Amino acid sequence: MKIYLITSNPTISDAMRSDLEKLGELAVINAQKMTTQDVVTKAGDAEVLIAGSSGIEKISKEMLQGLTKLKMIATLTVGVAWVDIEAAKDLGITVCNIKGANAESVAEHTWGMILDLAKRITEFDRDARNKGAFKFADYTGKEVYSKTIGIIGLGDIGKKVAQIAKAFDMRILGLNKNKKPVSGIELVDMSTLLKNSDIIVTSVPLTSETTNLISDKEIDLMKDGVILVNPAMEPITDRDAVLRGLKSGKIFGFGIETEIMKPIPSDSPYFNHSRIVVTPHNAFNTEDANRKSYELAIENVKMFISGKPQNIVL
Amino acid sequence: MKIYLITSNPTISDAMRSDLEKLGELAVINAQKMTTQDVVTKAGDAEVLIAGSSGIEKISKEMLQGLTKLKMIATLTVGVAWVDIEAAKDLGITVCNIKGANAESVAEHTWGMILDLAKRITEFDRDARNKGAFKFADYTGKEVYSKTIGIIGLGDIGKKVAQIAKAFDMRILGLNKNKKPVSGIELVDMSTLLKNSDIIVTSVPLTSETTNLISDKEIDLMKDGVILVNPAMEPITDRDAVLRGLKSGKIFGFGIETEIMKPIPSDSPYFNHSRIVVTPHNAFNTEDANRKSYELAIENVKMFISGKPQNIVL
Repeated sequence: MKIYLITSNPTISDAMRSDLEKLGELAVINAQKMTTQDVVTKAGDAEVLIAGSSGIEKISKEMLQGLTKLKMIATLTVGVAWVDIEAAKDLGITVCNIKGANAESVAEHTWGMILDLAKRITEFDRDARNKGAFKFADYTGKEVYSKTIGIIGLGDIGKKVAQIAKAFDMRILGLNKNKKPVSGIELVDMSTLLKNSDIIVTSVPLTSETTNLISDKEIDLMKDGVILVNPAMEPITDRDAVLRGLKSGKIFGFGIETEIMKPIPSDSPYFNHSRIVVTPHNAFNTEDANRKSYELAIENVKMFISGKPQNIVL
Repeated sequence: MKIYLITSNPTISDAMRSDLEKLGELAVINAQKMTTQDVVTKAGDAEVLIAGSSGIEKISKEMLQGLTKLKMIATLTVGVAWVDIEAAKDLGITVCNIKGANAESVAEHTWGMILDLAKRITEFDRDARNKGAFKFADYTGKEVYSKTIGIIGLGDIGKKVAQIAKAFDMRILGLNKNKKPVSGIELVDMSTLLKNSDIIVTSVPLTSETTNLISDKEIDLMKDGVILVNPAMEPITDRDAVLRGLKSGKIFGFGIETEIMKPIPSDSPYFNHSRIVVTPHNAFNTEDANRKSYELAIENVKMFISGKPQNIVL
């Protein structure tokens, strides 16, 4: 079995490498955003492809047609918008993702942002350095203890965010598409969630339905002084509406992951608001999640080869 | 009963005021750091004094001798280093504090700092604004999930910090003077705690014994890449030793509450390190804790008047 691993700065341990070498002939390519032509030229005989979106720009129909021996793709990502899943299906190529591998990291990041905004930590640190601020009376925060959190989207991340909320004796409201009950979470409709939550987290995939999911209408329904954190894709929260909400005081603090690997312009309106915390789509990025991602991708390859494929993307 | 409430910017609700007025004749003085002479002149007939250290500089023996009718002091603080407790005892004056009222706020702030440093949130936000940083690969963080936390001091705050750690399935090591078992916490000695913890929190009162409790010797014993958070008094962690630890990489991140209401000089060495988060002794300061503090102080007065004093400082 010819296995190619293509990503930028692969962090594969000796033990992982040895595991893969037991399964076949391994080639590791450290690359950034390889094109179709490059992939077909360099990995034309691949039977298994382990890849991250940082290493390959897009796994397109053309690329899959060029990789004539390919049987399986193990992505190093949870989201697979960069892979043409339909074409893979048509060509009989199995695609497996690393569902869940980042969930703990993203949930912890989400809680880091919630507590940061509630206790005004980044804001004070910034003002202490830039303005010499020190009077604590100017930085009165909020406790999260016994408050209500509303979680829009109850996938792996949303559920973990809820689990952490239990440590603060919070009431937990949740919204999910499939309506399946989740222990400890009150399933409600959007309007009930928006009206009753002190803290709101959006953890849904970006689709045409979820673009601008949180806009003026939704913000109007929220409690005064709400904390809003979007650890998912940026366009889920309408930027201008959120800035209006911050200006009016409706929103107390906003935590946002910006577009991955895209610089934020220095004149971004985000930087004109003190109670915004911005991170560069970094929530998933921990030593631990990186290790778990590789481990799970390799496990996916093993299971596929042994005839029991898992984590198949449909 | 003549009751004086003296503090800076008292945030007493109408309901609280009404409660106090049922107990006696109430005078509220909004002041900053009143001197002995001022207090004796303005509140000479006080039988009960509710006070915060922001309103009265120091409750000294002289002040207590001047307040000849005083029977009880209800502090709006947990720490009472600003009150001459011995003199109060000698004069038969009962002192009650608000033990526990801030514990939730401080524990949440502590966890805000831990997650902030682990996920490098403040650091990135600062670099994005000041340097245009955006590459997530430069900001790889750590998960706290399933790691070990060591908590030095298991009072109200230390115990709450431990309770939150359970949400992350952590191993919890603790050190307390009284050796009383605490559910879910492994009591260990200092050296075991330092050697085994991925995250270390100091939550002890400042005394001559705890000054520089964490210095070079202790940092040398710690794991590489430890996160250290001091939500208590600044001198508990030796500043220069911590800076050396950050420089060597032994310490991954440091969260520090600086001296209350003292500006941090712009050339402070704290500001030369990217992985330090600084707050102005702000951890206790939330809307919620402020409300609970007043409620508890008023309850302390009620209980004293009804002959069942509580939260007496010995």
